[in-house]
Amino acid sequence: MFLWNGRLVQEDEIQVSYLDRGYYFGDGIYEVFRIYGGKLFEKQAHLNRLFQSLREVRITLPWSEAELSGMVDSLTETFGKKDGILYLQITRGAAKRSHLLPESVEPVMLGYCEEVARPVEQLKKGIATITLDDERWHKCHIKSLNLLANTLARQEAADAGAEEAILVRDGRVTECTSSNVMMVKKGVIITHPNGPLILDGITKQVVERLAKQSGIPYRTTGFTLEELMDADEVFVTSTTKEVMPVTIINGIKVGSGIPGVITQLLQHGFEQKIKPAAAAELLG
Amino acid sequence: MFLWNGRLVQEDEIQVSYLDRGYYFGDGIYEVFRIYGGKLFEKQAHLNRLFQSLREVRITLPWSEAELSGMVDSLTETFGKKDGILYLQITRGAAKRSHLLPESVEPVMLGYCEEVARPVEQLKKGIATITLDDERWHKCHIKSLNLLANTLARQEAADAGAEEAILVRDGRVTECTSSNVMMVKKGVIITHPNGPLILDGITKQVVERLAKQSGIPYRTTGFTLEELMDADEVFVTSTTKEVMPVTIINGIKVGSGIPGVITQLLQHGFEQKIKPAAAAELLG
Repeated sequence: MFLWNGRLVQEDEIQVSYLDRGYYFGDGIYEVFRIYGGKLFEKQAHLNRLFQSLREVRITLPWSEAELSGMVDSLTETFGKKDGILYLQITRGAAKRSHLLPESVEPVMLGYCEEVARPVEQLKKGIATITLDDERWHKCHIKSLNLLANTLARQEAADAGAEEAILVRDGRVTECTSSNVMMVKKGVIITHPNGPLILDGITKQVVERLAKQSGIPYRTTGFTLEELMDADEVFVTSTTKEVMPVTIINGIKVGSGIPGVITQLLQHGFEQKIKPAAAAELLG
Repeated sequence: MFLWNGRLVQEDEIQVSYLDRGYYFGDGIYEVFRIYGGKLFEKQAHLNRLFQSLREVRITLPWSEAELSGMVDSLTETFGKKDGILYLQITRGAAKRSHLLPESVEPVMLGYCEEVARPVEQLKKGIATITLDDERWHKCHIKSLNLLANTLARQEAADAGAEEAILVRDGRVTECTSSNVMMVKKGVIITHPNGPLILDGITKQVVERLAKQSGIPYRTTGFTLEELMDADEVFVTSTTKEVMPVTIINGIKVGSGIPGVITQLLQHGFEQKIKPAAAAELLG
């Protein structure tokens, strides 16, 4: 089933207009929710960010947050699988092409679920990354559909045999094409401060809470590529990558080239967080 | 009639997939051609730039440039009106959502024409503008569908009672939300150099040729907002705005507040360029 403008429908009922501003301007926002044990993980945090993105791009929904929350729950139920993601996007709606925001227009909502397995092997071994100039716009805190820069950078990473590209803007490491990046130096977790240059990742928020619970110092401050290359540990976080060790940057080993102890500690803490869902899975 | 994947079709034959990467990533490029006297103006220049954009985003068309040229001609003929625009966009195609470029995918082409009148009154009187930070990505030379920053800036201009926003990046005036900007100082036309921070506008190219033909010095160099505010004349250029005088910036008059002599001279030259089409219109 699909979520289409507030209703659960079959795939063939989805009718995207060529005049949808999402189609010709990328004029919309989105969220990717994680489903563990058949339940949406950190649902409220995703909904909060969704509404934050909507405010930033001046889209007003005809649905309340409670209604949207019920809709994603219903979609997750009809999905019925334990492990997956829920993709939800909202565009400004269909209108004659004009840069000006149309005066009266109905936002278009599309949602669907997909089975996605946890990247178990990569979580154990870590991933290789490259670094690239951050050429994206200056409102990366908005989870918008303008993702061409991200996709081109991600492909450049793949062409170089890497799983992700770490982006560097004006000498500072910001984030990756679809994940946040953190480094560990002398026992301190360091990541770029929130603001217009990065997305405030939900998994990043979970890691911050885990660090505080575990008494690991967590600092948000800009750092250079040189500092990153000199880190003891590096990992990236995202809804699908979870807490993913980075063992190689630009062909060079991070630390000793294996996932670090603080990274593993955070991974363990993350496992505990999603365990209630896993437990529900066992009982279900 | 509409151009849809290489064929002329009726509107109801257009079927945009929700899996079109244009819809969820803005993964595509476009051109807006001007129709004068029933003919495409500067067609070859637009086609050149279209293929340049395609190369930059690594989209390979199943059609040759000659085939595409024939298609836009056919669409213009079926349109049948003298004055208008032809909008043409090409997305990477429909594929399961992944940041990685899909291995095999058919690009999706959409084209249509629309009646558009020349902005005659504004061309005489000039327009008011505001200035804003240029918050777009760093590949503005690609005419991509990632236009959220442009539309938000354009709306901000409208909210301030202005027709266009002049964008300033790192202290330098780049271009506008959907036009290039030029200033005239002591008889010299000055505009931002080509490169990743601006689109190489077709009308800008026409103006450069007109300036050379008329012996007006034309210089491409970065300039500050202060220099812009101190200019003798300012104008913007685009396919639909043509050579448009800017008489107000941030509420302050440019020069004496009326279109300048060099601007008018360029407007006159531009009129001559499009006259063959207008003449054809009279004969037709």
